[in-house]
Amino acid sequence: MSLPKIGLMIGDPGGVGPEVCVQAMASGRAQSRGDLVLIGNACAVERAVADTGVKLPVVAVSSMEEALNVEGLPVIECGALKRSEFEVGQSSAASGRAVKAWMDEAARLSQSGALDGWIMAPINSDSMRLASVADNLDALQPPGTFMFRLSGPLRAVPIAEHVPMRAIAATVTRERIEHVIGLTDANLRRWGIASPRIGVAGLNPHAMFEEDRDIIAPAVKAARAGGIIVEGPVTPDAVFRQCIQGKYDAVVTMYHDQGQIALKTAAFAGACTVYLGLDYVQLSVPHGTAYDIAGTGTAQYGSMVAAACTALDLAAGRGFLAMKDDEVAP
Amino acid sequence: MSLPKIGLMIGDPGGVGPEVCVQAMASGRAQSRGDLVLIGNACAVERAVADTGVKLPVVAVSSMEEALNVEGLPVIECGALKRSEFEVGQSSAASGRAVKAWMDEAARLSQSGALDGWIMAPINSDSMRLASVADNLDALQPPGTFMFRLSGPLRAVPIAEHVPMRAIAATVTRERIEHVIGLTDANLRRWGIASPRIGVAGLNPHAMFEEDRDIIAPAVKAARAGGIIVEGPVTPDAVFRQCIQGKYDAVVTMYHDQGQIALKTAAFAGACTVYLGLDYVQLSVPHGTAYDIAGTGTAQYGSMVAAACTALDLAAGRGFLAMKDDEVAP
Repeated sequence: MSLPKIGLMIGDPGGVGPEVCVQAMASGRAQSRGDLVLIGNACAVERAVADTGVKLPVVAVSSMEEALNVEGLPVIECGALKRSEFEVGQSSAASGRAVKAWMDEAARLSQSGALDGWIMAPINSDSMRLASVADNLDALQPPGTFMFRLSGPLRAVPIAEHVPMRAIAATVTRERIEHVIGLTDANLRRWGIASPRIGVAGLNPHAMFEEDRDIIAPAVKAARAGGIIVEGPVTPDAVFRQCIQGKYDAVVTMYHDQGQIALKTAAFAGACTVYLGLDYVQLSVPHGTAYDIAGTGTAQYGSMVAAACTALDLAAGRGFLAMKDDEVAP
Repeated sequence: MSLPKIGLMIGDPGGVGPEVCVQAMASGRAQSRGDLVLIGNACAVERAVADTGVKLPVVAVSSMEEALNVEGLPVIECGALKRSEFEVGQSSAASGRAVKAWMDEAARLSQSGALDGWIMAPINSDSMRLASVADNLDALQPPGTFMFRLSGPLRAVPIAEHVPMRAIAATVTRERIEHVIGLTDANLRRWGIASPRIGVAGLNPHAMFEEDRDIIAPAVKAARAGGIIVEGPVTPDAVFRQCIQGKYDAVVTMYHDQGQIALKTAAFAGACTVYLGLDYVQLSVPHGTAYDIAGTGTAQYGSMVAAACTALDLAAGRGFLAMKDDEVAP
């Protein structure tokens, strides 16, 4: 079996994305798991190499095959960014246009099978707006996907994202819950978990109100009748600790903050987001462009190392490896 | 200054409450902080002493003054439970009636100043229903109080308890938020925190919707104008980690699960609940009657030790002491 191949889309050229990408690649910490390639423009990668002091040559290539034979940092060049079109620590329309071209190429290479997937380094909403690509970053989420977030042993996927609380109950439908349970089960199996165990959070305190009984319980029952190992509605304030303790491989949540409060309060090392609903692995890291420290080479790149390890393992169907802190820390 | 005095209401006589109370007292771990007395009936305490193997005599007393001169386990006797009226591991009307009498006496002694407060060991909803005391345990929360929950360095108080999610937005009012901010500030000061810093969670994802802007922000601004050190609305998925890291002394939350998911996922040692809105300290422990293991003497009593240490410290205005695991573990 061939090694998995993952692209690192370098993110907004003025942010810390290119820096953490080149440092993660230069560290060599993920490459025992498979092959990595940068996706961007060489000028932006060279900027990051200079700012971080990484001692590797940047080599522009046009394909993954070519990248495999490169000594140094291979960059699949696409888009047409020039060094004069962006400044470190600042957004720009040129940056937004370039990022859009790099994202499209990363998706195209993944869809075609040239890559097994890709990781999105942090992009910037101002750059994307200036380039008229998107009004906000939510608009760039691949249509029909759900954001499977993981942090150590805790993994959660919500049935909806940025919905106001007053509209949450209306988004809790049996169809949506069954769909996300099915997607989660299918993805966990593809990623290497033979018999995934899924917990479904209730909507309400102690899972004791109308929607818990009339919508969530029947959805779980139907999924179980379809052969999925799933329980719920589980009391929302207990289900995440149960996942951490190993009772579930993942938790399906009823709203954004339900899972995010658990994930960001527990705050294990190696957090990242995987998009459910694609034929390949697509991840993003849980930090932004950090313009205030861009160019200093001081951004922590452990998150990118963790994302690279996770992407390569999931693409190879090796499951979620227990990640030690020293494996992901810079 | 005299030592603080806290009563331990022994809880449902058929549950683990009397066992964890006598074990916590016999361990002596809290008594360097102040004086403890049991509140209940001697027959229920004697049952627990026998089941746990605690080697101390049970002494019925009629006041705290009398209790201070007792060698062994003093019990302020009230109510009129007989040993023949309850069985270990089972609910009963007599248990419910006795618990009600003990709760009333604990509150009376605290209101009169004979005690600085009391801790409620686990009570049982079936016993309370059988005794026609209350239909559910929510009904026994002192009127006008709010449940301040703490777990290690994480502390959160919601503006409402068991409200269905579909009704949450309607409970988020400026009056209620300002009231709970004020109560939290006043209690933290009384408990020994000279300049309390309070974080107020937003209602919605990233605190970016209507209620965050139009209700929570003005409430926080008004509280700040009144001299309280308070920030918000803070992104709900970030505010609890910030509290753990020491940025806030407590978080005011907009709904039950917002804080409970954070508290029970982080799951630090020494969790308990303090009721805000009383003139004295009233705490409860975060576990139930555990009828399935009642009588075996195996229930962990670390939670009761932690609650006793916390109650004594808060009553004395010594603030929240950093509790080490070995200080509270059995």
